[in-house]
Amino acid sequence: MAELVGNCLIGQSGGPTAVINASVAGVVAEALNHASIEEVYGSLNGVLGLLNEDFVDLAAESQQAIRGLRYTPGAALGTCRTKLKKPADFERVLAVFKAHNIRYYFHIGDADSQETAVKISELAKTQGYELRVIGIPKTIENDLPATDHCPGYGSAIKYIGATVKELSLDADSMGQGDLVTVVEVMGRNSGWLAAGASLAKRRDHPNDPPHLVYLPEVPFTNEKFLDDVRRVLKREKHCVVVAGEGLVDKDGNYVAVETGTTEAQLGGVGEFMKDLIESQLAVKARVARLGLTQRSAAHLASKTDADEAFLVGQAAVKAAVNGESDKLVTLVRGDGDNYTCETGLTALTDIVGNLKKLPPEWVNEDGVSLNFQFFRYATPLIQGEVVVPYDNGLPSYVRLGKEGVDKTLPAYEA
Amino acid sequence: MAELVGNCLIGQSGGPTAVINASVAGVVAEALNHASIEEVYGSLNGVLGLLNEDFVDLAAESQQAIRGLRYTPGAALGTCRTKLKKPADFERVLAVFKAHNIRYYFHIGDADSQETAVKISELAKTQGYELRVIGIPKTIENDLPATDHCPGYGSAIKYIGATVKELSLDADSMGQGDLVTVVEVMGRNSGWLAAGASLAKRRDHPNDPPHLVYLPEVPFTNEKFLDDVRRVLKREKHCVVVAGEGLVDKDGNYVAVETGTTEAQLGGVGEFMKDLIESQLAVKARVARLGLTQRSAAHLASKTDADEAFLVGQAAVKAAVNGESDKLVTLVRGDGDNYTCETGLTALTDIVGNLKKLPPEWVNEDGVSLNFQFFRYATPLIQGEVVVPYDNGLPSYVRLGKEGVDKTLPAYEA
Repeated sequence: MAELVGNCLIGQSGGPTAVINASVAGVVAEALNHASIEEVYGSLNGVLGLLNEDFVDLAAESQQAIRGLRYTPGAALGTCRTKLKKPADFERVLAVFKAHNIRYYFHIGDADSQETAVKISELAKTQGYELRVIGIPKTIENDLPATDHCPGYGSAIKYIGATVKELSLDADSMGQGDLVTVVEVMGRNSGWLAAGASLAKRRDHPNDPPHLVYLPEVPFTNEKFLDDVRRVLKREKHCVVVAGEGLVDKDGNYVAVETGTTEAQLGGVGEFMKDLIESQLAVKARVARLGLTQRSAAHLASKTDADEAFLVGQAAVKAAVNGESDKLVTLVRGDGDNYTCETGLTALTDIVGNLKKLPPEWVNEDGVSLNFQFFRYATPLIQGEVVVPYDNGLPSYVRLGKEGVDKTLPAYEA
Repeated sequence: MAELVGNCLIGQSGGPTAVINASVAGVVAEALNHASIEEVYGSLNGVLGLLNEDFVDLAAESQQAIRGLRYTPGAALGTCRTKLKKPADFERVLAVFKAHNIRYYFHIGDADSQETAVKISELAKTQGYELRVIGIPKTIENDLPATDHCPGYGSAIKYIGATVKELSLDADSMGQGDLVTVVEVMGRNSGWLAAGASLAKRRDHPNDPPHLVYLPEVPFTNEKFLDDVRRVLKREKHCVVVAGEGLVDKDGNYVAVETGTTEAQLGGVGEFMKDLIESQLAVKARVARLGLTQRSAAHLASKTDADEAFLVGQAAVKAAVNGESDKLVTLVRGDGDNYTCETGLTALTDIVGNLKKLPPEWVNEDGVSLNFQFFRYATPLIQGEVVVPYDNGLPSYVRLGKEGVDKTLPAYEA
């Protein structure tokens, strides 16, 4: 393989996770090991930075700042939900890449956003511009195919599990008899996050809260829901329900959708359930909607997850320097009884447009609990606690210096 | 003072806090030091246990369990929102006390619930039954008068501050231009909790998020709110708003009240603001309603708070053994530049029905930020992190063995 000498660029895309910056740290740390990588740039706000030639010099950041990325939430380089669509946009990105001699591009994003990486690479090939593009997985929703699990997921379910445990203790201590606590979690159309709440159960205590877990994969009916809650309240003095935001009925229609003035959003299933319980069962219910904290609660991140997020960043650089391109870095679990995890590579084109589903055989026949296969899968992902420094009582997160890279092209009119 | 030999009883009341059990641990640990206290009982679910003679033997708990109470959320003995009203209820409680030779009663609760403690004590006096009653302060809302601050508050604002910081980093990284994040916090009619979110600002960075803090003490108008948001969005690329759940307009009417089938509850001010922003400013807004986690997130408890919660439990026992009764243990801040805190005592009758207000002079003239006096007050309360043990990736909280005390009276028909 011929050595490719030039600059590297990192972009972040989509919703942040508690560990998305650990992957940036992994890329930066590894890039410094390779003489063929000259400059290490970050794109501000993902593809917006690509279009607007908004780059920062990551090699100019202090060692402390890069180390701090391993525990700082949010997307430190900025991110966006914009998707490049027009051919002119891709032409522009490539012109920017050429202007800055970008030869390595690392795209941190979910399955959907990796399409951008694929298209940039394709255009480079048609123009004979040598460019190596590697995707780095990121999503709390764990729905990226080909990888055993996705960086971001472990920390999200550690936070959800801990919070459900704490809310359950709170509910358990209220002495007024029947009480239902509904915890609404994210996850769009997939139950990966809701399933993760099950980890709050102690081993060999299947009757521990959460008592009922509703997954988007299992069609929801009001009747079964009310029966489920009645059954738990016969046995327990309170009932903890976990609900994925994207629950659907048997026809595939969302049980609850909120409509704002700017866009329709999933959510509100917790309030829907509360109303149902209070009106049909005359039992008091309360809702905890965990919301955006699920992706930002870095103070409770999983060390395993953060370390793996760093690892996939490093692996991306190693792969690119070794001549790989158009690949996604994956996490590959070892076969042994003790959890081990290595990185692998898969074709980016294979994952675009695909989603990894929660295996139906991991859900018990009751439709509201997970079996040992899920516990065996998910438990290793939440092990260990990231040590976050505290300053004056609160987590002390880093901010990058963001020294700008001089622009060389005229501004782009999108 | 004559020595009073007999048994002691602890009851918890109202909503739990992250450190309410630390006060139980303080009582138990101190009670074991005094020969005049023979048995150490806990009342299950507060006054319900008093009525139903539902006691557990706390001296039978393991040392680990009592130690674990210092970091376990929820009310370990159970709590309730029931208030004793009928004279017959108080007669029953005293009969139960006599049956178990309860001579020391420790009531952990907020200002309102201490009325129960006062009335039990009064009745004991009229019947010539020697009983010492000491109140132990507890509430995340910090509205107990006479005490500098209230155990539970420090941990709640540490959690709120950390979460606002994390949500702000998340918002800051979204690259689509104007974005408003509304964080709805508890606190009923008081702004103590909302004000606490200000701690997320770094020192000497007044423009840090949260940019706008709305307190129930400052009348809310849509016009000023929209002007405030517009002003921030001119200066910053996003705006973080913190709103107390109990905001009122100039006539004292709640801005948002939710009505379920069982009771009307404060809440919904976040969604109200989001709708206003999206409809009037055409800017995207999102809501994070922190909810019950504010009182249960023990994994992020303040060490200062947890230690003080333990301390007030100890102080209550010392006071009672020394002959005090009908007193509330208070926290008394030292005068020096470095934060110190001791306990004091105040008459229980002085605090019942009174609430401590956030001093208006701590709010800046803009009505949406706090000045240095609040920071000086609140910053010491969130210092230090409680070390919570983790088991298999999640916080490992204790459950009491709850060995029942034999009942000696016929059941009570309330």
